[in-house]
Amino acid sequence: MSNLHQDAIVIDGLIISKWDRSVFEDMKKGGLTAANCTVSVWDDFKSTVHNIAQMKKSIRENSDLLTLVRSTADIEQAKKDGKTGIILGFQNAHAFEDHLGYVEAFADMGVRVVQLCYNTQNLIGTGCYERDGGLSGYGREVIGEMNRVGIMVDLSHVGAKTSEEAILESKKPVTYSHCLPAGLKEHPRNKSDEQLKFIADRGGFIGVTMFPPFLRRGIESTVDDYVEAIDYVINLVGEDCVGVGTDHTQGYGQEFFDHITHDKGRGRRLTNFGTVQNPLGIRTIGEMPNLTAAMERAGWPASKITKVMGRNWLRVFGEVWSV
Amino acid sequence: MSNLHQDAIVIDGLIISKWDRSVFEDMKKGGLTAANCTVSVWDDFKSTVHNIAQMKKSIRENSDLLTLVRSTADIEQAKKDGKTGIILGFQNAHAFEDHLGYVEAFADMGVRVVQLCYNTQNLIGTGCYERDGGLSGYGREVIGEMNRVGIMVDLSHVGAKTSEEAILESKKPVTYSHCLPAGLKEHPRNKSDEQLKFIADRGGFIGVTMFPPFLRRGIESTVDDYVEAIDYVINLVGEDCVGVGTDHTQGYGQEFFDHITHDKGRGRRLTNFGTVQNPLGIRTIGEMPNLTAAMERAGWPASKITKVMGRNWLRVFGEVWSV
Repeated sequence: MSNLHQDAIVIDGLIISKWDRSVFEDMKKGGLTAANCTVSVWDDFKSTVHNIAQMKKSIRENSDLLTLVRSTADIEQAKKDGKTGIILGFQNAHAFEDHLGYVEAFADMGVRVVQLCYNTQNLIGTGCYERDGGLSGYGREVIGEMNRVGIMVDLSHVGAKTSEEAILESKKPVTYSHCLPAGLKEHPRNKSDEQLKFIADRGGFIGVTMFPPFLRRGIESTVDDYVEAIDYVINLVGEDCVGVGTDHTQGYGQEFFDHITHDKGRGRRLTNFGTVQNPLGIRTIGEMPNLTAAMERAGWPASKITKVMGRNWLRVFGEVWSV
Repeated sequence: MSNLHQDAIVIDGLIISKWDRSVFEDMKKGGLTAANCTVSVWDDFKSTVHNIAQMKKSIRENSDLLTLVRSTADIEQAKKDGKTGIILGFQNAHAFEDHLGYVEAFADMGVRVVQLCYNTQNLIGTGCYERDGGLSGYGREVIGEMNRVGIMVDLSHVGAKTSEEAILESKKPVTYSHCLPAGLKEHPRNKSDEQLKFIADRGGFIGVTMFPPFLRRGIESTVDDYVEAIDYVINLVGEDCVGVGTDHTQGYGQEFFDHITHDKGRGRRLTNFGTVQNPLGIRTIGEMPNLTAAMERAGWPASKITKVMGRNWLRVFGEVWSV
């Protein structure tokens, strides 16, 4: 086995695990240099500030393993120190509420990636699980503010029309941080070839997920199916704007999935994932080296592997976060 | 001069004045039996609860003039007692936030009319000053809950598509509580003949406003222009589902108009009213008897006048509020 994974900068574009020491230890085992860690989904401003404070407390209490990421330099330092850099991210801009001023406040707190909508309509636009009327005027203002303060716009759970308009509105690269191609499986959460090319053609970024309900072979998938999906996207858009965004939900059970699949966390059911079991070989964060190994097995050159495993994310984060 | 106004049940479907004793005294002078009084526009849940507490304190402190309306019986009692009944109303469902449970909480507090959106997009739908993608899934749930607990759905500032879908969704009559016909003046806030017929054909209600920016002759208008506008609507939909909703902004100045014409009360400007001066003859709430006089001058029979001045609102409120 090569040293490729061990030496690489490894960045996971999306993890929404139950944050505790066992997960942080698994991040180290998995060789993660940094990860975009979700601290807000259905939470309002105050709850989200509480979640951020809790995550910062965890970083302090586990400082042998973790460090907070505010810049790409922090990611490079994490690599040198053998730690995992925590990037604070939201999967819903609900926490911005109706205050444009909250955007900079969250940037000040260290938030670096924010998804505009989560599954349904909010003040900004509409998610991918209901009819989507596009980006609102307030949504355009929010994107302008995110551009200004250096928060990356994430569109993974955002509807097709809002996404297209957000891609055109943003002056900085935007991302589907954790998505799969509809070309391999039709699903409201998956993106068509046209959508993937549209974001890539405009400087955007694609993180490929392995969340089983959206994979071609579902819970029968292995890490090789994940590599197949990543390669499908690379064949469409090239190898320079693609990374990984696993969507690991480690430590969570049915209560969590019920929360995230109901509107506002408690309203009507929007989707049902059934059994969630990650692909064989990468069921846990600690198995991340198996992904690099599967890429080598698939015959990928080292340069392609290191780009997709982290270098590409590092480059695009640098573009968005430098203000 | 007849006793028509003095004897009538007079209901104003929308007032958003600066609530103090001078306004309450003018309500008595104007012979108002009841009025839908706005206590929330851009306010969140907690601010709105504060506004309601403040209004209830005002009602207690001015109990020689005012009484809180929770039912149509309370309106009839107010008439007997020579008081003005305060109907608590919102011009934006923003205060419902993302909690369906807040709908019943506000009904418990006495709220009886809530406009779904104010000018722009919220979780429910979109207002009339931006592109409108229609009613959201959450919006359908909110209407169901408003129907259940007896809060009337108001659509005056709501976009055309959200309005149409809300009219179809609601199992109880809904209202444009304060609108003018686009047939007399094209304006984003005015309603087309088709829209007016659509709501009326489905059991809905139309309150006609006199807010000068939307009137055919603007600030040159008189109370007779107001009667003309009301008659325009009656000629379209008949005299049984039409009332008045003046939109008096008594006591407010430029700061207030700046607040309500910017998105979220502080964002981008959505419209500019210019000088706001109510029609001659009905510049103040206290001049309300002049409206009845103008109807008599226009040759309206007494039965039509009493219906439009209050009896129609009383009937439709009874239909919506009885649960």
